[in-house]
Amino acid sequence: MVMGINGKFPGPTIRVKVGDIVRVDVTNKLNTEGVVIHWHGIKQRETPWSDGTASISQCAIAPGETFTYRFTADKAGTYFYHGHYGMQRSAGLYGSLIVDVADGEKEPFEYDGEFCLLLSDYWHQNVHQQEVGLSSLPFRWINESQSLLMNGRGQYNCSLASRYNESATLPQCAPNVLSVFPNRTYRLRIASTTSLASLNLAIGNHKMYVVEADGNYVNRTEVTDIDIYSGESYSVLFTADQIPYDNFWISAGVRARLPQTPQALALLNYIPTPESKFPLSPPPVTPRWDDYGRSKSFALNITAAAGTPRPPKSHERRIVLLSTQNKFNGHSVWAINNVSLSLPVTPYLGAIRYDIKDAYDQTPPPENFPDWYNVSAPPANPNTNVGDGAYVLVNGTTVDIILQNANMLEPGASEVHPWHMHGHDFWVLGYGEGRFAEEDEKRFNLTTAPLKNTAVIFPFGWTALRFVADNPGVWAFHCHIEPHLHMGMGVVIAEGLDQIRAMNVSRDALSCGLTGKMFAAEDARRRN
Amino acid sequence: MVMGINGKFPGPTIRVKVGDIVRVDVTNKLNTEGVVIHWHGIKQRETPWSDGTASISQCAIAPGETFTYRFTADKAGTYFYHGHYGMQRSAGLYGSLIVDVADGEKEPFEYDGEFCLLLSDYWHQNVHQQEVGLSSLPFRWINESQSLLMNGRGQYNCSLASRYNESATLPQCAPNVLSVFPNRTYRLRIASTTSLASLNLAIGNHKMYVVEADGNYVNRTEVTDIDIYSGESYSVLFTADQIPYDNFWISAGVRARLPQTPQALALLNYIPTPESKFPLSPPPVTPRWDDYGRSKSFALNITAAAGTPRPPKSHERRIVLLSTQNKFNGHSVWAINNVSLSLPVTPYLGAIRYDIKDAYDQTPPPENFPDWYNVSAPPANPNTNVGDGAYVLVNGTTVDIILQNANMLEPGASEVHPWHMHGHDFWVLGYGEGRFAEEDEKRFNLTTAPLKNTAVIFPFGWTALRFVADNPGVWAFHCHIEPHLHMGMGVVIAEGLDQIRAMNVSRDALSCGLTGKMFAAEDARRRN
Repeated sequence: MVMGINGKFPGPTIRVKVGDIVRVDVTNKLNTEGVVIHWHGIKQRETPWSDGTASISQCAIAPGETFTYRFTADKAGTYFYHGHYGMQRSAGLYGSLIVDVADGEKEPFEYDGEFCLLLSDYWHQNVHQQEVGLSSLPFRWINESQSLLMNGRGQYNCSLASRYNESATLPQCAPNVLSVFPNRTYRLRIASTTSLASLNLAIGNHKMYVVEADGNYVNRTEVTDIDIYSGESYSVLFTADQIPYDNFWISAGVRARLPQTPQALALLNYIPTPESKFPLSPPPVTPRWDDYGRSKSFALNITAAAGTPRPPKSHERRIVLLSTQNKFNGHSVWAINNVSLSLPVTPYLGAIRYDIKDAYDQTPPPENFPDWYNVSAPPANPNTNVGDGAYVLVNGTTVDIILQNANMLEPGASEVHPWHMHGHDFWVLGYGEGRFAEEDEKRFNLTTAPLKNTAVIFPFGWTALRFVADNPGVWAFHCHIEPHLHMGMGVVIAEGLDQIRAMNVSRDALSCGLTGKMFAAEDARRRN
Repeated sequence: MVMGINGKFPGPTIRVKVGDIVRVDVTNKLNTEGVVIHWHGIKQRETPWSDGTASISQCAIAPGETFTYRFTADKAGTYFYHGHYGMQRSAGLYGSLIVDVADGEKEPFEYDGEFCLLLSDYWHQNVHQQEVGLSSLPFRWINESQSLLMNGRGQYNCSLASRYNESATLPQCAPNVLSVFPNRTYRLRIASTTSLASLNLAIGNHKMYVVEADGNYVNRTEVTDIDIYSGESYSVLFTADQIPYDNFWISAGVRARLPQTPQALALLNYIPTPESKFPLSPPPVTPRWDDYGRSKSFALNITAAAGTPRPPKSHERRIVLLSTQNKFNGHSVWAINNVSLSLPVTPYLGAIRYDIKDAYDQTPPPENFPDWYNVSAPPANPNTNVGDGAYVLVNGTTVDIILQNANMLEPGASEVHPWHMHGHDFWVLGYGEGRFAEEDEKRFNLTTAPLKNTAVIFPFGWTALRFVADNPGVWAFHCHIEPHLHMGMGVVIAEGLDQIRAMNVSRDALSCGLTGKMFAAEDARRRN
């Protein structure tokens, strides 16, 4: 069972142009569940209530209700949209979102055609059971997914056979076919909305050239394969230059976790080769899951294209965020600077707009972690706190965030976490090993740092980000691994409080919690 | 997976006294689902917003929110509470609710001790998948349950063995034990909150005496077993009069559908016989599922105890409700007088209170069905309509409802449906075969008609009910089979519109739909 949109899974691809004001009416036809849709990579300037994050930018849309998202498509690129309530993204609530350049503008590279590949992972166990397992004592992990999907299609048992087996009756289970004309160049828009898996994608026998990352142009880089983490998107160009004309596999496999899931496959079909012809070469082999050196060099090779704004030379504020695996009342959680995020009922945006102080903890969480904390060993005290405080940023501030990884509860273990920021791109200034130190700042890349909205922290390492707090609103910043966010691995950034208080925040988004009570009570006062 | 309350499944037994003002704070700790709790059998006089029916009496309580139910325990008896949103009752959201006589009052029968047996059925497939299957093309029926439960415990595979097998480690899976002293008399409070199953319950080697039905005293009737339909409750007395002292099985099995589910079992244990002693006699055998003659004679034997108010001699209004199985755009549905109920977003109670006309269809549904309709054959035209109109009753009116059963889509098939009314008890005036005719009224029982809140229609038959519309509010009246209600088998009764408009309806219950929008907009008007 999956969650669909307009009868489709994945949801329909939305395609707009830069400058378009995009309006999406989302009607919740679920039986008993609320829903929101987040427009991943869209900045939501002046429309923070359209960011689609439950408890942060709005109340969940109740069954039967319609909420209208309205936002400006601010930057050309490859994006996607997805549910951002509970683990509904993992339930299948996602689709592609493509922003083309404005009329009269051109992309800074040429191609003859394009394809979208939206990558995801799929469990047979429904997300309600997954959620309950993650919150239970004893803890029940979701384990590895049963399938990896490309545009919603995966391999399991004999589903691969359906294209090649006359008796198979489910063509919708067969891999996607990308049909190309020989010697033409194509843009492949790849985005990952996986719940858990970090992936590596390759096209058999074809080189690729990375040209875009998270909606930002990057220096054209030749690669044989790309690493892509949940929350990221890339465009690559490839030319159909193989002789003889044939069919080839496009494969995506698991990285950074011991793989237990078959590769996702799509078919690259050279016209006029029949689609049914089995490729001569097997699917590309995914690099070894724990070859982090390879992953790091891929990440470092992604640099900003000429014309990309450079980061400010220095920061005005630095926030260091230590990610740790912990226990809270015996439950397994993730914490940031010893606070595991538990979202409040009243959306932050409404609480700030209407100055409701008891909607969330008014004390911001810590901006660093103690000097004595050893990131190379399991936490000395595994217990942590749960909280819903927000980091408050003054409008216009240049902020550095140091994402610091650490050892998990198990000795010698540390995992990859792709951190995604809402409302912003940030410059990725650098990656490092061990604990971030002041002198590491000297190695920051201030010239070709790429702009991204999602950046990974490698095991036992750190990642340095810089951004300008120029977008008033309340923004989630979190690990994009769905069960990790569910277990508290995120923070909330409240940016430009004065500006928010002057905003005409959509009231449709605030009918829950203390804002909802305020509306009902004020009406009562007027009527009585 | 089940839905629990305060960490328990079934939820905790709530025990109050007549005249108590009961306050229950329900906090929704589900991840993404709304919730409501219905207090089954409680009249909710002057508190219709506490009836706990989503879309009728209130908006669903959103995750993280708390709603306070406050109502008067109006009548001593055996009741239960349960979810009334989507199919959450079937997910396990239920518990017992016992109302004792007021201090200084006495029950009109004597007993030395008592037990509650709350009966239910349980599927391994979660209710989300069940709901989706029922709404899908092609239709996927939920099929028979995997287990029948008594107080949440059932038999499946080896769970029965856990009491008798040293190696078994799950005593919570073993049957309930009802320990009695020899020669004492006990009250067994039996209620059925099954999603689908009609049940028959018996105590091996023991006679029972029915003394209460749906919170109303009935003439003491000796029986060997009782039929109990979903939504009903009975109290029976039994005396531990067996020699030798031993253990005996209490069994409940499926009636009115071809059984494919093991009996539910509980153990009647004579103190000091060890609980672990296996009963000498096997569990009572459930009567043949399709012996409707037996069921009808059981139903007819239930008559009002002396002192029960008699029905008014005549009705002022008659509503005939024909239940049919139909198609709507190819989907399988149930319809009443050719309307399949689809609940609106805005609760009726709020829409009426604030005079919002576009919240639901202001044209009430038909009060009868055409003369030419043949209840003994499949519908000539299987297609029906979907609607959300309400029957409007003027306060004080005496209303007869004739529930008319009919042939289903399949020739020669008709099923049992237990109809439950919110906000009222009704007198059950009679049952009949075939189509109700005017002359049938002469056979109405106007002297000993029992008061109930749930009454069954037998296959191809009719059931006549009478009640006085003396409880302003909006009340569901529906088949208590969960998938049937989900498929539209219910009606809405709006009673005493003028009285509702003058009510101080709890605004906490109305933050959704058009009432929610009104609250938000009025606040906006005040602030701007």
